[in-house]
Amino acid sequence: MWLLYQFPLCPFSRKVRFLMAEKGVTYDLERESPWAPRDDFMQMNPAGTTPVLTDATRSITLCDSQAICEYFEETVDQFPLMSGSPVDRAEIRRLTAWFDQIVFGDVVAPLLHERMKKRLVHRAAPDGGVLREAMRRANTHMDYTDYLLDHRSWLAGGTMTLADITAAAHISVADYLGGIDWQGHRPTKRWYAAIKSRPSFRALLAERMEVIIPPTHYDQPDF
Amino acid sequence: MWLLYQFPLCPFSRKVRFLMAEKGVTYDLERESPWAPRDDFMQMNPAGTTPVLTDATRSITLCDSQAICEYFEETVDQFPLMSGSPVDRAEIRRLTAWFDQIVFGDVVAPLLHERMKKRLVHRAAPDGGVLREAMRRANTHMDYTDYLLDHRSWLAGGTMTLADITAAAHISVADYLGGIDWQGHRPTKRWYAAIKSRPSFRALLAERMEVIIPPTHYDQPDF
Repeated sequence: MWLLYQFPLCPFSRKVRFLMAEKGVTYDLERESPWAPRDDFMQMNPAGTTPVLTDATRSITLCDSQAICEYFEETVDQFPLMSGSPVDRAEIRRLTAWFDQIVFGDVVAPLLHERMKKRLVHRAAPDGGVLREAMRRANTHMDYTDYLLDHRSWLAGGTMTLADITAAAHISVADYLGGIDWQGHRPTKRWYAAIKSRPSFRALLAERMEVIIPPTHYDQPDF
Repeated sequence: MWLLYQFPLCPFSRKVRFLMAEKGVTYDLERESPWAPRDDFMQMNPAGTTPVLTDATRSITLCDSQAICEYFEETVDQFPLMSGSPVDRAEIRRLTAWFDQIVFGDVVAPLLHERMKKRLVHRAAPDGGVLREAMRRANTHMDYTDYLLDHRSWLAGGTMTLADITAAAHISVADYLGGIDWQGHRPTKRWYAAIKSRPSFRALLAERMEVIIPPTHYDQPDF
């Protein structure tokens, strides 16, 4: 049985969990807080980041969300999320990296720092300027997803792929932390409503991080 | 013919060029400075990052170094750089992400900012504190590569893989910018000497960035 080390607002863990659920792979959860990692955890992943996925019976330890997702894409046929030609897969991977690196760095990481870490760890108030800048950047990134979804059914083309999984993971964490203004983003909102209606994703939206409360629209398919 | 948009000190472009050379794929170069991108370039890659690889005759545009490397791994059989089992590939991808994200963020990005961008763009002096912190972190990361290379011939196992290509790309840029102290890192030094002796990599080491001069040991196989 797979065991996933994570915390509820980790976007990279959400990406892996969303993909595993769509592929019908079951797992148990273990809570890990990377801002106060246990020694055992650092042994498993010297990078100190979540998610880490282990299978003790087969002595397998997998780290890094993209490495984990590629692993399941290679080993589980159900619900392929990187299909098409090599050029199609390059486009899926380009957009996946866009969300994991640029959207995470511009939007999700500052929101997590200001609204989660400062609350739980530093007991400090968030910096309004940093929050406003993160929300401004979220808006710009959603202009780009609007543009893509004006031309395509899903972010990377005609079918749902790892790019959609990854985008939904990051956007859902930003939305939980009040960082998304949905007004004026009709294409992205329509796409996210379709994502929200999937049972695999609804299970993620039902979870809560201690102390931090999401906006009321957060888990509503109609928002 | 492939056309690669890059600048000489871009570690992600070096990663792609090293892989293409090992696989025997030829390309032309086009200089692009992401700190002052042309409009045409932003059209090709809205992320504004190098490398971008195009093939005009086939209307192909590829962005993101990992997406490009996976593309060539899928389409060119020569010199496989991600072979083995799915677990082996997960280890290759974990270490590749380690260098592209953690080592880049901790070491290469601050060195590029302080020693290249400040010199070329801002005409300002580097911040000694930032440089010392980047070098301290480089040292810690090389303790980890020493540890890996005490147990393995190459970073991810028994053969040269994309993990070695990626590590060499980032370390070579850090070394060009004077950020690496090789003392006390015998395993990593031995591994890097083997990399430096490869004709595909020597071609990269022969190039220079305008104004910025590397240390004398930079392109020497014996250093």
